[in-house]
Amino acid sequence: MEVELKHLMADLQSLNQSLPDPSLHASLLQIQSRVEHLANLAKSEPLRRSKVKDMSAEVVDSNPYSRLMALQRMGIVENYERIREFSIAIVGIGGVGSVAAEMLTRCGIGRLLLYDYDKVELANMNRLFFRPDQVGMTKTDAAVQTLSDINPDVLLESYTLNITTVEGFETFMSSLKNKSFRTSKQGSGVDLVLSCVDNYEARMAVNQACNELSQTWLESGVSEDAVSGHIQLLIPGETACFACAPPLVVASGVDERTLKREGVCAASLPTTMGVVAGLLVQNTLKFLLGFGQVSPYLGYNSLKDFFPTMQMKPNPQCSNFACLERQKEYILAKPARDAAEKAKLEAEPPTEEGPLHIDNEWNISVVDDCELDGSNAKSSDILPEGLTHELPVADDFPSIPACQAPTTDNDDLEELRRQLEAINS
Amino acid sequence: MEVELKHLMADLQSLNQSLPDPSLHASLLQIQSRVEHLANLAKSEPLRRSKVKDMSAEVVDSNPYSRLMALQRMGIVENYERIREFSIAIVGIGGVGSVAAEMLTRCGIGRLLLYDYDKVELANMNRLFFRPDQVGMTKTDAAVQTLSDINPDVLLESYTLNITTVEGFETFMSSLKNKSFRTSKQGSGVDLVLSCVDNYEARMAVNQACNELSQTWLESGVSEDAVSGHIQLLIPGETACFACAPPLVVASGVDERTLKREGVCAASLPTTMGVVAGLLVQNTLKFLLGFGQVSPYLGYNSLKDFFPTMQMKPNPQCSNFACLERQKEYILAKPARDAAEKAKLEAEPPTEEGPLHIDNEWNISVVDDCELDGSNAKSSDILPEGLTHELPVADDFPSIPACQAPTTDNDDLEELRRQLEAINS
Repeated sequence: MEVELKHLMADLQSLNQSLPDPSLHASLLQIQSRVEHLANLAKSEPLRRSKVKDMSAEVVDSNPYSRLMALQRMGIVENYERIREFSIAIVGIGGVGSVAAEMLTRCGIGRLLLYDYDKVELANMNRLFFRPDQVGMTKTDAAVQTLSDINPDVLLESYTLNITTVEGFETFMSSLKNKSFRTSKQGSGVDLVLSCVDNYEARMAVNQACNELSQTWLESGVSEDAVSGHIQLLIPGETACFACAPPLVVASGVDERTLKREGVCAASLPTTMGVVAGLLVQNTLKFLLGFGQVSPYLGYNSLKDFFPTMQMKPNPQCSNFACLERQKEYILAKPARDAAEKAKLEAEPPTEEGPLHIDNEWNISVVDDCELDGSNAKSSDILPEGLTHELPVADDFPSIPACQAPTTDNDDLEELRRQLEAINS
Repeated sequence: MEVELKHLMADLQSLNQSLPDPSLHASLLQIQSRVEHLANLAKSEPLRRSKVKDMSAEVVDSNPYSRLMALQRMGIVENYERIREFSIAIVGIGGVGSVAAEMLTRCGIGRLLLYDYDKVELANMNRLFFRPDQVGMTKTDAAVQTLSDINPDVLLESYTLNITTVEGFETFMSSLKNKSFRTSKQGSGVDLVLSCVDNYEARMAVNQACNELSQTWLESGVSEDAVSGHIQLLIPGETACFACAPPLVVASGVDERTLKREGVCAASLPTTMGVVAGLLVQNTLKFLLGFGQVSPYLGYNSLKDFFPTMQMKPNPQCSNFACLERQKEYILAKPARDAAEKAKLEAEPPTEEGPLHIDNEWNISVVDDCELDGSNAKSSDILPEGLTHELPVADDFPSIPACQAPTTDNDDLEELRRQLEAINS
């Protein structure tokens, strides 16, 4: 529009110069002043805030970060401005992912990587974030449009691709590995991956990428009847991966036979998705900024306002090879981890009712080697009230004895597998 | 802008007619076509969706209600389209109220009444909803701008006023009493009031109005350290009103001495406010559409992902006169209520594990008359883990014996007060 207005003004100028009759100049001048007014109107419409170099804690109405920096004065966060150093990847910019992206943008996250291949439709308008005027745009483009207006300080990278295709997965992997944003970082180039996809295949693709990159991620989901959801923390090798156990869902108590009929469109609510996005990003902030406890699994049953929690250990018979590799590394690193924890405990004076492990930022208890087969127990025996498996438990996992003798440091997954084969033969 | 463009086109037309030289017509024609292009650009920018007469369940991308109407097929809601008959008042269009308004707008609520006197500032940008280009607008104007673009089917009424002033309170009361939207409704003209204010005085004003109008409301709040919040259902006469007991807050575990220092700006997070808004509107939907259980009180401690619940009975020594009137009515209506419940129970066949009271849509147990003094018990004795009173318990309430003998139908609050005076004299 700005370009159009410039051309218009140039045309009027040249017409003015070629006008023979001085009496016509007055009416042309009026036209020119109208166009100038229009140009001003057009300019003032997309009023954007300018970038902010440093986060200030100054309590003035014009400071977009004053209420966030106040978290330091309130004793919640030690150094809020560190948020600018972090990169978060959000896979799926739908009802949960788009709201999560907006929350992180408003919190002033350093860099956001957004992945989706879908377009905005009017049928999405029952969830937060997208606007009717964005219908037809790709979700990534629409998200970048909205988020860059809200906070120009956030570095946005968008990828319009399907991570379940070969090409899409390769681009996904290489974008996660890109370390140009903060060179000091170890492992992958992002601090956390948030999975906000709505199907099993896409979750398996995120799981594969994160297992290969040893990348911690948070998975989220909302049920097809729109009234329950969950978030889950996955640390490759340390917690169950998405292939270790059938995914869990929060039971809504609604007859399952009415769900998942072929061709039936799933229900969704802005409330359930907003709550799940809020819990997801709150746990992301706790993870990044080191306050509170990150939940290993948190369900939300909205019919009863019930929030089940649980922890899941990795499955030594997991079908995912990269997961087995990470499990092996985790077991092999146990002596070093124990020594580091012991040193930390000795260095710090004992606190009243202190945490079991000082550095246990995810509130996860250490998995004893002999308990590694826990995830093979019958699902109904180990799941807390209100949780059910989304898929039936696979019957082809061989059962192993309740508890092996404590394994030595030399034991690894190959050894476990050999023992297992001997038992089954 | 549209008006300006029309004037411009008229001016060009008259200039065209007065041009003597035919060679100038060509350049003027080019100018006119440029202006027409600009007019088209200006028209296409605020692309709004048209109003929808009936909510359709048709599964097409262009249907903004398909995912909501699917709640019926999923067996969650019996008649979703009823949502168009309801009016909701939201007091306080800040971090919680604005998101609640957006959720209800996207759900297709019939009518929204919005109350706030504040202006949008850059310091609000760390919470969802308002955009930097709205800085300087009143929150009510900015909300109407955004919400009417999102869903033109919702009837929006905005009131830029402070309900704690005499004049503001009067307008607030008369707006709640206006029954023109749906004439069949009994009592006030709204179905539910959502309190999303950030201070004690405003909550007391909402409490006063709702007690006077016998209007059920949902209160919400977020702590000054930004990491906890709550929602609470208040039914005048049936549950504790806001004056019955010191307000409850969810303890964050952070040293209270660091909080509430004079002149310190409160912290806030889009996550906590998004979760509280989501829980608030989810319970609003359950209340309106009759599914699931409405929580009488639900807390959110984000540091531990802990969600305490509780119920609060009215205080027969409440300082609010209108509350005492409602309590009296509630007690007097007990025989009629019991008879109606009995009739309903007899009319319907007994269901397996059915609810205690068929019509108990708020999941609140009937308060036995002799338990009416429960709220006078020492607060530390009755509060569930994780909840504390925001203010100290008032010491001037006279204590009464643990449990009176069951009162007869003739007993009312005057009688209770007489008994109390006799004990204390």
